[in-house]
Amino acid sequence: MIKVGIIGSTGYAGGELVRLLMGHKDAEIVWYGSRSYIDKKYAQVYQNMFQIVDAVCMDDNMEELANQVDVIFTATPQGLCGSLMNEEILSKVKIIDLSADFRIKDVAIYEAWYGIEHKSPQFIEEAVYGLCEINREDVKKARLVANPGCYTTCSILTAYPLAKEGVIDMSTLIVDAKSGTSGAGRGAKVANLYCEVNENIKAYGVASHRHTPEIEEQLGYAAGEKVVINFTPHLVPMNRGILVTEYATLKKDVTYEDVKAIYDQYYEKEKFVRVLEKDVCPETKWVEGSNYVDVNFKIDPRTNRIIMMGSMDNLVKGAAGQAVQNMNLMFGLKETEGLELVPMFP
Amino acid sequence: MIKVGIIGSTGYAGGELVRLLMGHKDAEIVWYGSRSYIDKKYAQVYQNMFQIVDAVCMDDNMEELANQVDVIFTATPQGLCGSLMNEEILSKVKIIDLSADFRIKDVAIYEAWYGIEHKSPQFIEEAVYGLCEINREDVKKARLVANPGCYTTCSILTAYPLAKEGVIDMSTLIVDAKSGTSGAGRGAKVANLYCEVNENIKAYGVASHRHTPEIEEQLGYAAGEKVVINFTPHLVPMNRGILVTEYATLKKDVTYEDVKAIYDQYYEKEKFVRVLEKDVCPETKWVEGSNYVDVNFKIDPRTNRIIMMGSMDNLVKGAAGQAVQNMNLMFGLKETEGLELVPMFP
Amino acid sequence: MIKVGIIGSTGYAGGELVRLLMGHKDAEIVWYGSRSYIDKKYAQVYQNMFQIVDAVCMDDNMEELANQVDVIFTATPQGLCGSLMNEEILSKVKIIDLSADFRIKDVAIYEAWYGIEHKSPQFIEEAVYGLCEINREDVKKARLVANPGCYTTCSILTAYPLAKEGVIDMSTLIVDAKSGTSGAGRGAKVANLYCEVNENIKAYGVASHRHTPEIEEQLGYAAGEKVVINFTPHLVPMNRGILVTEYATLKKDVTYEDVKAIYDQYYEKEKFVRVLEKDVCPETKWVEGSNYVDVNFKIDPRTNRIIMMGSMDNLVKGAAGQAVQNMNLMFGLKETEGLELVPMFP
Amino acid sequence: MIKVGIIGSTGYAGGELVRLLMGHKDAEIVWYGSRSYIDKKYAQVYQNMFQIVDAVCMDDNMEELANQVDVIFTATPQGLCGSLMNEEILSKVKIIDLSADFRIKDVAIYEAWYGIEHKSPQFIEEAVYGLCEINREDVKKARLVANPGCYTTCSILTAYPLAKEGVIDMSTLIVDAKSGTSGAGRGAKVANLYCEVNENIKAYGVASHRHTPEIEEQLGYAAGEKVVINFTPHLVPMNRGILVTEYATLKKDVTYEDVKAIYDQYYEKEKFVRVLEKDVCPETKWVEGSNYVDVNFKIDPRTNRIIMMGSMDNLVKGAAGQAVQNMNLMFGLKETEGLELVPMFP
Repeated sequence: MIKVGIIGSTGYAGGELVRLLMGHKDAEIVWYGSRSYIDKKYAQVYQNMFQIVDAVCMDDNMEELANQVDVIFTATPQGLCGSLMNEEILSKVKIIDLSADFRIKDVAIYEAWYGIEHKSPQFIEEAVYGLCEINREDVKKARLVANPGCYTTCSILTAYPLAKEGVIDMSTLIVDAKSGTSGAGRGAKVANLYCEVNENIKAYGVASHRHTPEIEEQLGYAAGEKVVINFTPHLVPMNRGILVTEYATLKKDVTYEDVKAIYDQYYEKEKFVRVLEKDVCPETKWVEGSNYVDVNFKIDPRTNRIIMMGSMDNLVKGAAGQAVQNMNLMFGLKETEGLELVPMFP
Repeated sequence: MIKVGIIGSTGYAGGELVRLLMGHKDAEIVWYGSRSYIDKKYAQVYQNMFQIVDAVCMDDNMEELANQVDVIFTATPQGLCGSLMNEEILSKVKIIDLSADFRIKDVAIYEAWYGIEHKSPQFIEEAVYGLCEINREDVKKARLVANPGCYTTCSILTAYPLAKEGVIDMSTLIVDAKSGTSGAGRGAKVANLYCEVNENIKAYGVASHRHTPEIEEQLGYAAGEKVVINFTPHLVPMNRGILVTEYATLKKDVTYEDVKAIYDQYYEKEKFVRVLEKDVCPETKWVEGSNYVDVNFKIDPRTNRIIMMGSMDNLVKGAAGQAVQNMNLMFGLKETEGLELVPMFP
Repeated sequence: MIKVGIIGSTGYAGGELVRLLMGHKDAEIVWYGSRSYIDKKYAQVYQNMFQIVDAVCMDDNMEELANQVDVIFTATPQGLCGSLMNEEILSKVKIIDLSADFRIKDVAIYEAWYGIEHKSPQFIEEAVYGLCEINREDVKKARLVANPGCYTTCSILTAYPLAKEGVIDMSTLIVDAKSGTSGAGRGAKVANLYCEVNENIKAYGVASHRHTPEIEEQLGYAAGEKVVINFTPHLVPMNRGILVTEYATLKKDVTYEDVKAIYDQYYEKEKFVRVLEKDVCPETKWVEGSNYVDVNFKIDPRTNRIIMMGSMDNLVKGAAGQAVQNMNLMFGLKETEGLELVPMFP
Repeated sequence: MIKVGIIGSTGYAGGELVRLLMGHKDAEIVWYGSRSYIDKKYAQVYQNMFQIVDAVCMDDNMEELANQVDVIFTATPQGLCGSLMNEEILSKVKIIDLSADFRIKDVAIYEAWYGIEHKSPQFIEEAVYGLCEINREDVKKARLVANPGCYTTCSILTAYPLAKEGVIDMSTLIVDAKSGTSGAGRGAKVANLYCEVNENIKAYGVASHRHTPEIEEQLGYAAGEKVVINFTPHLVPMNRGILVTEYATLKKDVTYEDVKAIYDQYYEKEKFVRVLEKDVCPETKWVEGSNYVDVNFKIDPRTNRIIMMGSMDNLVKGAAGQAVQNMNLMFGLKETEGLELVPMFP
């Protein structure tokens, strides 16, 4: 039985980790870290866990945790994991960091977009970017996994096969993304109050959102070239779900069947990526609560562009689910263990 | 492996049955009945099931089904199950009817409130009212189980211990209930359109809702007297969840601890009924997607009334989850098999 | 042109006052008070007011305000208005207090339910309870109006005619109320975040909500007896709207027509109270954005109870609209000026 | 007093026309046409109108209407207005058609995208495209106005100044649009049920939505060249509101101030188009219930693109409000009469 510690267990991603791990037969949470709720019963913070989780919230003592558990999930704000990381910890325990600290290889880019100094850049090189469908073999061997961002997971997987196969002109790629509000976290801010979000949609972080360089880096590896994109996130009045609509100019003269074959080549064997049937558009509701990413595309001969679409539950495949998938790979378990969740509808 | 047939598999309750049974290790759905979608792939009706369910919708041939399966769930409008029932079918297969056809023992009351003639009243006596926490032993031996209504499950379990123990004056009982919109079904009606339900709340079926006599009958058994109540359902802009707020005058001078002890006596060992801690009010979100009913109460010394509250997912404990729980009991399986679902939050 | 000052103009009720007064032809806002946003442009706090309101937020200087304006609206937390009130201010300016400070005649009850000391109890006697339909003549002569609470306005108006006419047994009255989330204000609290409220319903303040004694006092005047009730508010995932469902035992043998005649007697000439047609249940959506209260009732001969229902926009008739209606009365204007708003649907 | 007839008064756009015209001091509705509800009281179809509208629904008799009214609004499905139009009617009455029948000058394009035969193409030439901010002078003289589509109004106004001034490369223009659900109409379809739309977002009509050629035609006039774009609408779980996010490559080296000056040049004097302050993104909530379009933009030097954004209430400026604005122009009234609606928040 793998012993799990969670730092930041009372945020939304942390709470989802708990939900998923409750159904995982080879893992057991032994440390519910939450700086804000130390000594409070976890089930009083998340009442859904009443009679399911009996534990009390602990502090964020990573050194102590390293002695007690096999794997630590850090579901914390940017900078925290980086500031706590050291070789001794890494020698004792595997780390899956849900923050952005180890996602971006170029520390200057990290520091520029996040506006903070990286406290342990020496581990960036070693860290594996935990997008399982793409870096599966590296994840299996990793001590430190950088769990991808929510927008990035969906944005990358939706375009990846076409970037990799050189079908699209990467300089034309535009990602218009829409997210449910749990992506904004559980902090008490006026902008996230029910009455401010409900019956409303807006763009935010236009041309400046922090997931931009992460998408660019990963799709750059796929395309084998430097990639610069427009990425525009929008806040949608729903709890969960990310939808991306991506636009790119085709570099080749391809048919629906050609493109479908490329997607199938990459994803047919992937449990968690579903290439939908022709003309079926991904919807966030169809993946809610599950680890699936649904993708599809439409070629527009009028403009010679392709519109790629992807949907995903931001708290599952976009955070906690992918983190568990990474854990499964790192510990040699069945990759889908604890993740065979059927999407909930309605 | 138990072979399952579902009649009405494309309604919301039917869809939830499919979701739950996908995670049940001893049951397998072999017949997806749906009069409206015959020959259509099930996963095209419910896109969440893409790559999970490969089957095609079948008609509602109960006689044929009886030959092929071990248990039939009928998740259909009132009257259908009653019209198809006969001894030959019942001799071959167990039936769990999610409609109201066999819930009410007095056929005259059924016919009065539902406005239809009962086509097989001879089976009403045999049918077991499938509220597992109350009728567990009878369910185990049943051929025909009447799965309780959504409002009724929550309304009854919330008041049951106090009715049974004679703590409340049953003639004063008022049930004010609030339900998410999936309770209204998947039929295309203007009143259930997004724009009509969203940002809106209303009462409906005031003093005339069909779940009234069902609550009265069951609480009458508990109290050992004829019970007549006010039951008022309300439509709430959310997908899932039922909340009941029940009011009754106390017959005895009781403290919080007295009442808590009574609730615990009935529910402490019940996996799916959670008596919350003092002053914690049930919320539908804390049970979403799970088979739990959360209950609690507050004594008001100013009025000598007790306010009882219960919350539940109408599609799980209020329909499909309870149906699976009944199946588990009828087939001697672990009662919680397939139902150990952690509520999803947010 | 009446000069208006608003203290607390950046809360939701304050914002609604601004919206309504923008369409009022005899009033002009000259002071946008907001302790939290001093010196910030009002239209940057409420972007809907861009190019409509050009003013900057001011502090809460009531003495200075009294010199500059004809009427002050205080849309502030409990206790503030009471702490600022004095005879000099009242001699210069009319006050419409949207807080609870002057609603309850018995200061001991106020202090017990609100848990604060009243700083100017000497003005309670003079203050007029500004439920216009009931206290119209007194409001016209008032210097200080206590604008009723949101729940109370709807709860009282729904039951008032039957309480006044002795049709219902007041000792049996139960008010089950449901409110949209704007009633919780614009403070940044976790409990009011989008993800916590959305897809959720809960009761709160059970047997202890502060609007209880206010309803009891006013309905007590109507009934001519001391009234003690159960009042249970619920939080509903919608921005605006209050629905009350009230239960009481009938003291007389009355028909639908009898009761309808009583409601009509009180409300037929009231612009803002609409007695709906038989069997039409009030819905919050049908009054959204307007100053209407929709009421109706249903007699249940099975239980000898009557179920009364009322719906209202909590920010209009439940706060800002009623405040403007009071202002109109106090200044001898047409009572409906600025309030002839057609409900917005959908 | 202008006499108004509405054909299709019980759809959402028709209902909004009624709401707006109730507050218009120079117009009076004398004919509430609704094929589906003939002889039913209008206020029973839209309960918000109880005690406000006393009329009964009439049939769609355009010939008769032409004798009785001064202006007819047709808020009906595509094809109806075209099929009823003739010279005699147009000689008697002004027509404002909210359907697409007279929006597109090239009848072949209309017939290709809408899949129906145009029954009165002889009037297309005469019809004025009623985007008031652009075609104001022509509207004033028109007998027949084609009221623009909802998506198109927002899409065009957001990009218009930059298209007109040659700042953006029109061949790169991509419009990613998001709409509330009232845009889908009041028809009873499973896809528009509450439970299907709530907690969900999806694209639809990808590369094939009918508003595409309308946007292309109008922006083509502005740019002075043939324009072909990608337009992707999305369905958002909210009642009202359209947000467009538009991407285009800059043709010139421009600063924020340059572009702001261009927007101001076109819109500074326009009451209903608000160019927001720097870095403020349009949100649908800030314009809800009003006739405003909020626009803004962000230059991304990394990609040399500009991101233009616009928000609007689809039922007001996107339908009924613009129709009333057109009526005001056609009859020589103040353009803003009946439209000085302050956006409702929250």
